[in-house]
Amino acid sequence: MNFFNIIFQPSGKRGKFQEGKTVLEAAQELGIGLESLCGGEKSCGKCKVRIIEGDLSSFSEEEAKWITDSERREGYRLACSVRLKGNALVFIPEGSLVQKQVVRKEIVTHKVKRNPAILPYLIELHPPSFHDPLGDFDRLQNALSTAYHLPTLEIDYPTLLKLPYVLREGNWKVTALIWMEREILDVKASMVNEIYGLAVDIGTTTVAGYLCNLMSGEIVATKSMMNPQVIYGEDVMSRINYTMTHPDGLEKLHRSILDGLNQLIEKAIEDIHLTPKDIFELTVVGNTVMHHLFLGIDPRYLGVSPFPPSLNLSMDIKARDLGLKVHPSAKVHLLPIEAGFVGADNVGVLIAEEPYKRNENVLIIDVGTNGELVLGNKDRLLSASCATGPALEGAHIKFGMRAAPGAIERVRIDPDTFEVDFKVIGEHDLKSKTEQTNKAKGICGSGIIDAVSELYRCGVIDKSGRMQNKLPSPRLIIVDGRPEFVIARKEETSIGKEITISQQDVRNVQLAKGALYAGAKLLMKKLGIKKLDRVILAGAFGSYIDPEKAMILGMFPDCDLKNIHAVGNAAGEGATLALLNRGKRWEADEIAKKVEYLELTIEPDFQQEFIEAMQIPHMKDPFPHLRGLVSDELLDQ
Amino acid sequence: MNFFNIIFQPSGKRGKFQEGKTVLEAAQELGIGLESLCGGEKSCGKCKVRIIEGDLSSFSEEEAKWITDSERREGYRLACSVRLKGNALVFIPEGSLVQKQVVRKEIVTHKVKRNPAILPYLIELHPPSFHDPLGDFDRLQNALSTAYHLPTLEIDYPTLLKLPYVLREGNWKVTALIWMEREILDVKASMVNEIYGLAVDIGTTTVAGYLCNLMSGEIVATKSMMNPQVIYGEDVMSRINYTMTHPDGLEKLHRSILDGLNQLIEKAIEDIHLTPKDIFELTVVGNTVMHHLFLGIDPRYLGVSPFPPSLNLSMDIKARDLGLKVHPSAKVHLLPIEAGFVGADNVGVLIAEEPYKRNENVLIIDVGTNGELVLGNKDRLLSASCATGPALEGAHIKFGMRAAPGAIERVRIDPDTFEVDFKVIGEHDLKSKTEQTNKAKGICGSGIIDAVSELYRCGVIDKSGRMQNKLPSPRLIIVDGRPEFVIARKEETSIGKEITISQQDVRNVQLAKGALYAGAKLLMKKLGIKKLDRVILAGAFGSYIDPEKAMILGMFPDCDLKNIHAVGNAAGEGATLALLNRGKRWEADEIAKKVEYLELTIEPDFQQEFIEAMQIPHMKDPFPHLRGLVSDELLDQ
Repeated sequence: MNFFNIIFQPSGKRGKFQEGKTVLEAAQELGIGLESLCGGEKSCGKCKVRIIEGDLSSFSEEEAKWITDSERREGYRLACSVRLKGNALVFIPEGSLVQKQVVRKEIVTHKVKRNPAILPYLIELHPPSFHDPLGDFDRLQNALSTAYHLPTLEIDYPTLLKLPYVLREGNWKVTALIWMEREILDVKASMVNEIYGLAVDIGTTTVAGYLCNLMSGEIVATKSMMNPQVIYGEDVMSRINYTMTHPDGLEKLHRSILDGLNQLIEKAIEDIHLTPKDIFELTVVGNTVMHHLFLGIDPRYLGVSPFPPSLNLSMDIKARDLGLKVHPSAKVHLLPIEAGFVGADNVGVLIAEEPYKRNENVLIIDVGTNGELVLGNKDRLLSASCATGPALEGAHIKFGMRAAPGAIERVRIDPDTFEVDFKVIGEHDLKSKTEQTNKAKGICGSGIIDAVSELYRCGVIDKSGRMQNKLPSPRLIIVDGRPEFVIARKEETSIGKEITISQQDVRNVQLAKGALYAGAKLLMKKLGIKKLDRVILAGAFGSYIDPEKAMILGMFPDCDLKNIHAVGNAAGEGATLALLNRGKRWEADEIAKKVEYLELTIEPDFQQEFIEAMQIPHMKDPFPHLRGLVSDELLDQ
Repeated sequence: MNFFNIIFQPSGKRGKFQEGKTVLEAAQELGIGLESLCGGEKSCGKCKVRIIEGDLSSFSEEEAKWITDSERREGYRLACSVRLKGNALVFIPEGSLVQKQVVRKEIVTHKVKRNPAILPYLIELHPPSFHDPLGDFDRLQNALSTAYHLPTLEIDYPTLLKLPYVLREGNWKVTALIWMEREILDVKASMVNEIYGLAVDIGTTTVAGYLCNLMSGEIVATKSMMNPQVIYGEDVMSRINYTMTHPDGLEKLHRSILDGLNQLIEKAIEDIHLTPKDIFELTVVGNTVMHHLFLGIDPRYLGVSPFPPSLNLSMDIKARDLGLKVHPSAKVHLLPIEAGFVGADNVGVLIAEEPYKRNENVLIIDVGTNGELVLGNKDRLLSASCATGPALEGAHIKFGMRAAPGAIERVRIDPDTFEVDFKVIGEHDLKSKTEQTNKAKGICGSGIIDAVSELYRCGVIDKSGRMQNKLPSPRLIIVDGRPEFVIARKEETSIGKEITISQQDVRNVQLAKGALYAGAKLLMKKLGIKKLDRVILAGAFGSYIDPEKAMILGMFPDCDLKNIHAVGNAAGEGATLALLNRGKRWEADEIAKKVEYLELTIEPDFQQEFIEAMQIPHMKDPFPHLRGLVSDELLDQ
């Protein structure tokens, strides 16, 4: 077997690889963030690279789908398709590099009753004597039992090993940190005023961590990062697929999220003079696949009907068993899974939003690559999962990109002149308004929703999503015989060409929103609900969707606009609540069992509902609350 | 810092060591079994080596205590005292090599009610469907709960990871191995007819393992080995000392017993076609120091008054947390500790002998380097620990050695001719009578007890232990002005000289037996007992002590000879019982709390009792049951 050198430009990273490796595999092994939405399945076209020189496998049919003839002449190839036959020098264009996500995972902090799982117990012991030679642990146990009426305790093994030293160092006056009145996690030869915990939301794309002082209930740091698994595939199905097609795939995905979390932990503590050993507990939410990959459980059975998880129940595990670099005795609490893809993240949303305490009917939509829906009130709750596809996150869209610097995230179109006003995410964050002069690189999810909604409102596309072939505006252009609408002109972009919304983009958005709408509709039918009292748009993404535009697009059935709210990262908020108040864990266990799961794909009405919901806003359903926002003419089409 | 080469003969082992290392340290690092009873403290004189050539530290005062002038001229040194200043070639004489112990740890198998901690549950599940998409673990849990009325179970993390595969491999019919109706240790895609466990007795000198089929209650293999910690010191105090004087001492002792147990496990399974993964549970007993070193707990506080252990309570821990190579989910159950040095081994003795179920008063003596005593009946039990010293195990005796091939283990002296009849342990085992023609190398504990007892019975030593200066026999010789009695003549030995019992040897035996007797006497006083109904001699050693000789020597107060029993390794038997019947664990927990510990060293009468008990059989106490065995003249001295 031969080995060849490969050098990547502009980074200059290089390595020696076996004959037959793909350029994508080589890039991944070198840690280069080359986009690969489909996980190397040749189905997304995002991993375009330019071969400067080198001996490689010949151009394939699959590549021809993504590489134009002129690109081909310049040396462009798909990195996932091209295999090494000799040394190679490869250039990665900016558009193929994974961008640093602008992470929007701030959570709305509720007033939460503080009742953490770990509490400190200050205790003074009588030193051993000939007449009382009891063992150190027994002595501690008895004293705690007498002073605090605690039951029989366990002690974590590493803590047992240090106990004799700490008792003597503290002159028999120590603080025991006890988890759930059950297990001694640590013993300190001093008073303890601060115990920290970390709430973690593992999103398919973004991971967010909320570092909390368990004693005060305060969130002391919020940090987030891209899920490092993204290089192995953009959505949950491509990650499942990666584990099935690579012998070490499961291990790689498992290690990459844990390595990522260890980095996140370092980031969370860096500004506040803590060490990782100050973190005694983590609460974790994520969809079912993220949950399984975090634990290292093979997710393959989640990928085939009837999609059973390995466990639904919540779980407590030692952080060290996972290799998390926190306190050696720290615990990890995973919230329970509802069913199928409706995972612990949705349970987090539920305990944050508490629909089970409401009288009115509320629809909660957790928007993401996989959409999750919950509908109901205190009497009954139904959940469902929709494969919305990644369009609402900017993938499978011609100029789609993540919510990263350079992404168009707000679009407004003048219905008379068809002139476009848009807003670009700045280098540092959206918040710094001064950065809005940046040139556009692509268009992210909220921009796509805005754009399609506006195209409909302005009559550029009709109810069925068909784009007009002619328009009294140079914004409408014809590419390969099909119309596209120019959102950003060439001089407004950094990519040397205009950014458009294509007919295909509109179709992809319709598929996504149609799935959500159809799901919501089926849930309403099951519960016998005719009208939504309230809609909550959750998700890291959710806080930036414009509720009005979303309803014009028809992401969900009609609802009074004042009762539609974007609540931000409710899943992360749920994890935080569970960290600060153990009562929320029992609430989570209860609600995860109580929520009824509806498998949409086997509902006989699903196809019909889906077809009707693909229209904008809907084929048949009335939208009285859109009167005045959209012309009557359009609504009555 | 300079490094020098050292070569050991006759093995030829060699290595490079830093200037200033002792020859003993070098030998230990090379894994050479050089005797070191005191753990390198220059106080046993057992690590004699001959320097063939080399540049070493000069002869010290301490060495002069152990090396005669003629030996010094031949190049003899103490390996623990001599430090490297250059390269060296060192010869280790046979007498300084650790011998392969003849291990006598057979246990008397009782009829025991079988009630192991781990039971197999065969269970058939409904496969998941769209209408029942419950998670794998929840599904298993529910099925077990329905079929067997089991409570909420935990599942060990590695088992959770394999569960999805096993359920499908077994076509949803599997066997769950459940510990204490609490934790699923493993799930197998087949029927399970055999589950194995290992009962382990970690003695200071010998480690014994009893491999049991938990389903049948049968002991399928009995294996033993020398405790590999022996090279770091012979008794518990020298091992505590080793951990305190070497920065990595605790880790070394901890690792060495675990490595040893992993070897023992391999030995236990080798003949019966099992793998280490077939072992699902271990029960462990050992004295308090062995218990602590097994767990890796610093034993230093056991070495200073009031000698509190780190814990008294029994404990369950994952075998993998200790690095034991058995089933990845296997459990280890450590029996509880009574107090101070009266450890889990004594608890094992108690649950094997069950004095707490007797009406009559029984004295149990567990003979070892540290002697443990229990006295009482169903109403009350007292325990005590005696620092007997290693004399009864053959150390601190001029020609003392362990019960290894070449050791004299039985001695009979003709009271008229003073001729000696002795028996030597054969190469293979005592059981093979054909080996008794072996030449003697030294004298082990039971031989020493026999010899001193016989010397007294024959009038060679008097009640006070003083040896006669003259005797009408060439057996009495004078060495350095002091009398010694020849047990084996030069031509009967393999060491080129006669084997004798010296005056000092008699004194050391008197110290040991005096401590046991005084301890027993104080326990009798505390309980208001005038007369022993029964004496049980336990210990791996115990089964080979001749009860008659032991009573003549005065190891314990007078008792009817027919009520004195040697029961073999009762500690190991207790561990086995606890393995096969979980009820014995609760019995152990109860009795460990109930037994009252008497710290002998702070009893005001101890010194007086000890002085009186040093006489043979005792200064004052009558021994009516020795009438006829020992001349009236001697008894009435």
